[in-house]
Amino acid sequence: MVTRLSNYFLRTLREDPSDAEVASHRLLVRAGYIRRQAPGIFAWLPLGLRVKSRVEQIVREEMAAAGALEVHFPALMPREPYELTGRWEEYGENLFRLADRKGADMLLAPTHEEAFTLLVKDLCTSYKDLPLTIYQIQDKYRDEARPRAGLLRGREFTMKDAYSFDYTDAGLDASYQKQRDAYERIFSRLGLDYVIVKADAGAMGGSKSEEFLHPTPVGEDTFVHSAGGYAANVEAYTTLAPAPESVEGKGEATVFDSPDTPTIATLVELLNARHPNPDGRVWTAADTLKNVVLALTHLDGTRELVVVGVPGDRDIDMKRVEVAFAPSEVEAATEEDFAKHPALVKGYIGPWSAEGAVLGAESASGVRYLLDPRIVDGTAWVTGANEDEKHVLSLVAGRDFTADGVIEAAEVRAGDPAPDGSGPVELSRGTEIGHVFQLGRKYAEALGLQVLDENGKLVTVTMGSYGIGVTRALALIAELNNDDKGLVWPKAVAPFDVHVVATGKDTAAFDAAATISEGLEQAGLDVLYDDRPKVSPGVKFGDAELIGIPTIVIAGRGVKDGLVELWDRRSGERTQVAIEKAVEALTTAR
Amino acid sequence: MVTRLSNYFLRTLREDPSDAEVASHRLLVRAGYIRRQAPGIFAWLPLGLRVKSRVEQIVREEMAAAGALEVHFPALMPREPYELTGRWEEYGENLFRLADRKGADMLLAPTHEEAFTLLVKDLCTSYKDLPLTIYQIQDKYRDEARPRAGLLRGREFTMKDAYSFDYTDAGLDASYQKQRDAYERIFSRLGLDYVIVKADAGAMGGSKSEEFLHPTPVGEDTFVHSAGGYAANVEAYTTLAPAPESVEGKGEATVFDSPDTPTIATLVELLNARHPNPDGRVWTAADTLKNVVLALTHLDGTRELVVVGVPGDRDIDMKRVEVAFAPSEVEAATEEDFAKHPALVKGYIGPWSAEGAVLGAESASGVRYLLDPRIVDGTAWVTGANEDEKHVLSLVAGRDFTADGVIEAAEVRAGDPAPDGSGPVELSRGTEIGHVFQLGRKYAEALGLQVLDENGKLVTVTMGSYGIGVTRALALIAELNNDDKGLVWPKAVAPFDVHVVATGKDTAAFDAAATISEGLEQAGLDVLYDDRPKVSPGVKFGDAELIGIPTIVIAGRGVKDGLVELWDRRSGERTQVAIEKAVEALTTAR
Repeated sequence: MVTRLSNYFLRTLREDPSDAEVASHRLLVRAGYIRRQAPGIFAWLPLGLRVKSRVEQIVREEMAAAGALEVHFPALMPREPYELTGRWEEYGENLFRLADRKGADMLLAPTHEEAFTLLVKDLCTSYKDLPLTIYQIQDKYRDEARPRAGLLRGREFTMKDAYSFDYTDAGLDASYQKQRDAYERIFSRLGLDYVIVKADAGAMGGSKSEEFLHPTPVGEDTFVHSAGGYAANVEAYTTLAPAPESVEGKGEATVFDSPDTPTIATLVELLNARHPNPDGRVWTAADTLKNVVLALTHLDGTRELVVVGVPGDRDIDMKRVEVAFAPSEVEAATEEDFAKHPALVKGYIGPWSAEGAVLGAESASGVRYLLDPRIVDGTAWVTGANEDEKHVLSLVAGRDFTADGVIEAAEVRAGDPAPDGSGPVELSRGTEIGHVFQLGRKYAEALGLQVLDENGKLVTVTMGSYGIGVTRALALIAELNNDDKGLVWPKAVAPFDVHVVATGKDTAAFDAAATISEGLEQAGLDVLYDDRPKVSPGVKFGDAELIGIPTIVIAGRGVKDGLVELWDRRSGERTQVAIEKAVEALTTAR
Repeated sequence: MVTRLSNYFLRTLREDPSDAEVASHRLLVRAGYIRRQAPGIFAWLPLGLRVKSRVEQIVREEMAAAGALEVHFPALMPREPYELTGRWEEYGENLFRLADRKGADMLLAPTHEEAFTLLVKDLCTSYKDLPLTIYQIQDKYRDEARPRAGLLRGREFTMKDAYSFDYTDAGLDASYQKQRDAYERIFSRLGLDYVIVKADAGAMGGSKSEEFLHPTPVGEDTFVHSAGGYAANVEAYTTLAPAPESVEGKGEATVFDSPDTPTIATLVELLNARHPNPDGRVWTAADTLKNVVLALTHLDGTRELVVVGVPGDRDIDMKRVEVAFAPSEVEAATEEDFAKHPALVKGYIGPWSAEGAVLGAESASGVRYLLDPRIVDGTAWVTGANEDEKHVLSLVAGRDFTADGVIEAAEVRAGDPAPDGSGPVELSRGTEIGHVFQLGRKYAEALGLQVLDENGKLVTVTMGSYGIGVTRALALIAELNNDDKGLVWPKAVAPFDVHVVATGKDTAAFDAAATISEGLEQAGLDVLYDDRPKVSPGVKFGDAELIGIPTIVIAGRGVKDGLVELWDRRSGERTQVAIEKAVEALTTAR
């Protein structure tokens, strides 16, 4: 089809939008692809809608190739199913909630696990109805606290969400793999680099979970990876615990005075000055045990203090801590929290005191105590003695103190070992573009989805959930494909295949441009033809560069010599070609 | 493409859904096209989504042919623009409202006039940017008080809404006509009969408005039409007022006793018995003036009593009254209202009493008085005298009483004259399938949309608004195209072109069916192939009839003789054809 710019709804802007932080936001607005409606909420203009349709088409083709069937659910859903799975509460303020005229609670669905589960429960009764993978491409709403970066983190976005249903674990593995393979094909076709990393299943529940991250220094997510092939979201990294040690020969726990040691560094300094290490080594922060007091707010509104112990050379990573405690919310303990727990001596907190156990569900304080996996039985630590200005030396795990459990709370650092033994890890940043989950039976159990198996026995269905952020992927493509002049779309998703520009006052140029546009149309290409009269060549070229269609044809002064110019937007290369050869040159070059 | 039913997500139901009132709802649910999620809110299953896509595709093609460009707005919009145009209030309880986490008011947009106006204001500055018509196909939400009839009146529905922008009235006329023409083409292609009727612009404001009604006895709307070509929604019908008469020679207003006349009929009986008509005619209800007391609730919350006078032989039509008073709400006056207005003597209300004017802004009561257009100056009436058990004879309009205005409140009856002189009208029922509005400058003025004209002068833009209920149209097509076995889709919107059914245990039948399916695919047709093993022919045929694909191919017992059956779903006609001729027969028949 040939679309004439003189009749098209396109207004490019000279100024960057004042709220644009990233290139994709800036350029998609300036080039007339999207317009802001409210914080994190955008309208799609004709050019933008074309690119979005092409991205969606690629997703649809690969979903079909993976045997997934398309359905469509409304954004507005009733509360009840989300109540049954706990998500009505768990999503907290991220959920848009409303009541209808009769007072019935409803929500704008962040994803549709519940609805898909109920649909399958409604319609499927037998193992013969499975496996089944159904998906939708749908506009979703999440009330982000800080919508930003244009489409990259909005409050409204288009998502492809797929759900698989199987009655055996092996079936789920196969369905999961099909979607995972489809994702690899989709991101390859979109030209988006990706790393597949282990992920924490988080609020979605379930057992196995992987994220597709696009590696970029400005990404919001951190992931770890080893040369040997390990890759995980930092929240999903698991620490390689050392083997327990024998307590034999370990010195007695010894309390010592430690005035003026507000930090681990000052404590280590004091140790090396006054209490030389019996084994001759210089003390380091790694010899100390740091106890961090956190306050959890559980879904039922109750507040609980917990203490997390990590080696003193590591900070805790709040993102990892949040995942560890989800769906409860977590923050640093406040003065008020401390006031309520006088057993905890701030600045000198440890699991032990001369008078007995201080931390742990069974202790005097009753405060839960969770330990980093490195703090294995038999290891000796320097830590707070629960007395003002006192610490304790040679406090041995398993002998002098025990914990209520293990927690992945410490920061992950470059050089830490990959848990699969594949060597030390590096840390990199990325942006999530896809997520595949094995939900397992959580939703099916909560909503009662069972089918009859081959033996006529009712079995609970096992599910997977698979998401791609369609509009985020589009924004990332724009983020990766631009220069100082504007956007540079890859051919797979460009709004048009060719941008034909007629310049000057010579009608011959416009005639040549029209002829070439029609020829390209006949060859099956989508053409944007800039036929605007009385617009200067400079403005037309500027618009063409800003819009970023990969191939531009210029019919201008050369037309009188029978020539037009082919302009490759990405390389900037311009070549002259005879008017009558232009269509052939463009269709064979593709 | 060939879609194999063994891998498809389709479960037909034997039972009608218990809440289904109409055939389309019943069959679309039973045949696996849609599933209910909440009152008036449905999910689209794979078959349904296919039909919906085909309807949308027809709309898109005709919008493109009319020069309209597609955009897409979010459903979730901020309150402010709807506040500026008054619609935030006017939509009342029909609007889904919510607040975001920061307390900002938002809504699920019922239509997007405001957003489109602001978009054009944002991007267009000159008459050169116009005319412009932009549209979207978008999921809309309205909190209907009584969602019913499945997709015909839901709380969520897909709508095509287009908006035109012009800077001259002639331009608006042309843009309006283009959309109107496109609508005629769309409904013709969808096989939906329509009548174009004058409509009241209602809450949308504006000057000219027409509805496309599909005539059906079960329709919610009543429209009037004359043999001479007049057609109007009953709310938009305007009464042909007679010429004023001379008051000369009209008798004096005369109060008479009228005990026991609770109704117009008893009053007329009394008149004929005791007060013979001076001109010799028998009194009829049409000689009396009926005064109906209504209570308005205005947008600002204030309550106002008004009295509407109509000839005594007509009831008032509350739908017409509602339109006349919109956006205020209207109901019958309550006892409490009467108690507050002692000047109105219930049962004997009239505009006049022996002591002076009773009704009208200037009267003692101060209650507004509005008259039916038939009550012209010089006409004499029998009406209440504002005293218990008293009426008045020969009360002459313009001499004895005046009103504050004219109102279209009386019911319209078959035989009433068309206002354009084209003869008496008939009344019929229909369902709205499209609506074209000339909004004029209302929205542009409220939101400040102006452009520079040819003379460099700022002019306010004039707009049109054009809607098609996509999912309602789909439901109507289903409503019109079914029989006692199931759906019978027209070819233009059928989910697949051909339904191939293999029956029996003979693999030759399945081989023949597969070959034919592939042949049809190569001919560019979409094929649903029922390849389910171990499903009886009866079940397969029943499903085929229920699903309603227009052409069915049966590969069964005849295959051993080289034959398959072609089955026309609509006519029920079955013809045998050689296997190798089947594809040709089906592709040339189309």
